[in-house]
Amino acid sequence: MKSITVNLKNKSYPIYIASEGWEELPQAIEGKIRGKKVLVVCDENILPLYYNSVKSVLISMGYQTDVAVIPPGEASKSFDRAQRLYTKALETGLDRSSSIIALGGGVTGDLAGFIAATYMRGIGLIQIPTSLLAQVDSSIGGKVAINHPLAKNIIGAFYQPNMVFIDPHTLISLPLREFATGMAELIKHAFIADQDFISWLEDKMEALISRDIQTLSDALYRSCQIKVSVVEQDEKETGLRMILNFGHTIGHAIEAATGYSKYTHGEAVAMGMVYESKIAMNMGLISQDYIDRLVCILKKANLPTQLDTPEWDPIIDRMAYDKKNMDQRIVLVLPTRYGKVEVFKDLNPDQIKRLLK
Amino acid sequence: MKSITVNLKNKSYPIYIASEGWEELPQAIEGKIRGKKVLVVCDENILPLYYNSVKSVLISMGYQTDVAVIPPGEASKSFDRAQRLYTKALETGLDRSSSIIALGGGVTGDLAGFIAATYMRGIGLIQIPTSLLAQVDSSIGGKVAINHPLAKNIIGAFYQPNMVFIDPHTLISLPLREFATGMAELIKHAFIADQDFISWLEDKMEALISRDIQTLSDALYRSCQIKVSVVEQDEKETGLRMILNFGHTIGHAIEAATGYSKYTHGEAVAMGMVYESKIAMNMGLISQDYIDRLVCILKKANLPTQLDTPEWDPIIDRMAYDKKNMDQRIVLVLPTRYGKVEVFKDLNPDQIKRLLK
Repeated sequence: MKSITVNLKNKSYPIYIASEGWEELPQAIEGKIRGKKVLVVCDENILPLYYNSVKSVLISMGYQTDVAVIPPGEASKSFDRAQRLYTKALETGLDRSSSIIALGGGVTGDLAGFIAATYMRGIGLIQIPTSLLAQVDSSIGGKVAINHPLAKNIIGAFYQPNMVFIDPHTLISLPLREFATGMAELIKHAFIADQDFISWLEDKMEALISRDIQTLSDALYRSCQIKVSVVEQDEKETGLRMILNFGHTIGHAIEAATGYSKYTHGEAVAMGMVYESKIAMNMGLISQDYIDRLVCILKKANLPTQLDTPEWDPIIDRMAYDKKNMDQRIVLVLPTRYGKVEVFKDLNPDQIKRLLK
Repeated sequence: MKSITVNLKNKSYPIYIASEGWEELPQAIEGKIRGKKVLVVCDENILPLYYNSVKSVLISMGYQTDVAVIPPGEASKSFDRAQRLYTKALETGLDRSSSIIALGGGVTGDLAGFIAATYMRGIGLIQIPTSLLAQVDSSIGGKVAINHPLAKNIIGAFYQPNMVFIDPHTLISLPLREFATGMAELIKHAFIADQDFISWLEDKMEALISRDIQTLSDALYRSCQIKVSVVEQDEKETGLRMILNFGHTIGHAIEAATGYSKYTHGEAVAMGMVYESKIAMNMGLISQDYIDRLVCILKKANLPTQLDTPEWDPIIDRMAYDKKNMDQRIVLVLPTRYGKVEVFKDLNPDQIKRLLK
């Protein structure tokens, strides 16, 4: 069981990558849960797959365990669902010493994490991400949130878990498109921070796509290391952490403009990375070679690299709502060379539109 | 303008007690608001009294200012009201550099503070408390929350403001009963931490009740100092901060058992302090003299010291839901001498019932 320690000002906690699977969970949980009561949150798809394994471990360790089951999908990150989870937490008798375990993908981690962050002003949280997207990205770094009808992830907190447990075996049964959406964030980590990791991914893409456990473990380890290093330097996203948003300003806007139904998050981010790279090229920051290599690796990972029918006006309109923006200026994260991106804060919508053409 | 600095691990900020009133607000705000946009949250009663003064100051300092008006009263600390405020924040175009000003009493501070804590994962917050309860207690220390239909303040965060601005002149027009509810917390601060302050309050009670500005300023200053000193030592209420809950375990239960309508928070806390002192006396921790002195000072402050018709069963049942409880044990804060309380964690409901009789 490999581990990475996340060192933050007020808190340090481990991320475990468990190549032996659930057997390693007791060792990972040891000392991470203060009280006696644990509420596991998972969706209807994850319940039959993994809940019994996790429950057995918790019961064998003496914890009182209950489960809250949510419908799968982004719609669960709602006010209404949050309120039902608070009710469940009260009915289960969770107190300040209790913990919530988020067992599942990004939606579960974000929602259950937000409940843990705000129930009784914050209780224990353990993340057990089971999708690639959650394992490389959303379970790491403490961002939790629910959605507002007008904007995604607009209600949230920075709330660090007490432990993250990643079992790469959960990736074997992941549907193709869900696997690809996680690959987008993994590839992003290489392009923002590590030129060697880009080459490694180019070499290993076939093994990754065929879900080879050892290769997946290695990729997860490096990807988590990159994200952790950024988060450690800027937990609350006041500066450096924004580099993790490469592909996301345009990606989020694509998701919003297409009603969050046509593309997965990773698909939108993949196209976002390509379009943001085009802006960077048109600004003279990088060359065509960068885009070619990015497009090639994304295609190998079964990700789209351009919109079927680019309609920029609604997409650029949506960029105005991005959380990164400050005082009405759109913030873009643009590549400046392989393994390096920078934050640009002074582009206006007209300039962006021109640079995209 | 007197000030007290709150020194916390990640943040320091000032509490100003402005004996000259709103004229001192520009100096206090200077450097505390990062972006350009400010949303003031206040209730319908406070709007005509103070919003224009605050707005003028903000506009003269170059801020874009909007206001969200809420109905007065505890019912505004709801999910529904929170969702409307998030919508207002989005419509006003608040971004991560924007700030929320909570202008009003405890309900406004708790609700607006919770919105500031969770909107875009946390934006700027300034507390301008206008009730005595908010000035001596709820605006200080970063506790923000909304209510769940099953339990008060169960959804919240520890979220520190960038500044607290207290204008004692706002107390002059405060209705008698609302003034008394704040006095309960002020008296509590003396009894938990400062024997000399108990004597001072006994001497000055008439001047306080008649709203003498200088005496109010002095009392606010000492009371805030006590609360700040406790919060600095234990921001997240993992230990010492629990002493601020003297009178609150029984007080909260009285409020809940009487449907939050018969008594104000301070009235319930006043009775809670007397009943918890009785428990302490029956445990041999203090003498009858302590209770007599406490009852006398509470009466002078127009606070009740006993229930009309004590029915303990529903009150003790309600104690089981207290946020301080750990693993089903009821936590009580009991006096051990003048200016000193301690946390007791091992009393069960039957023992409490016997000790109350």
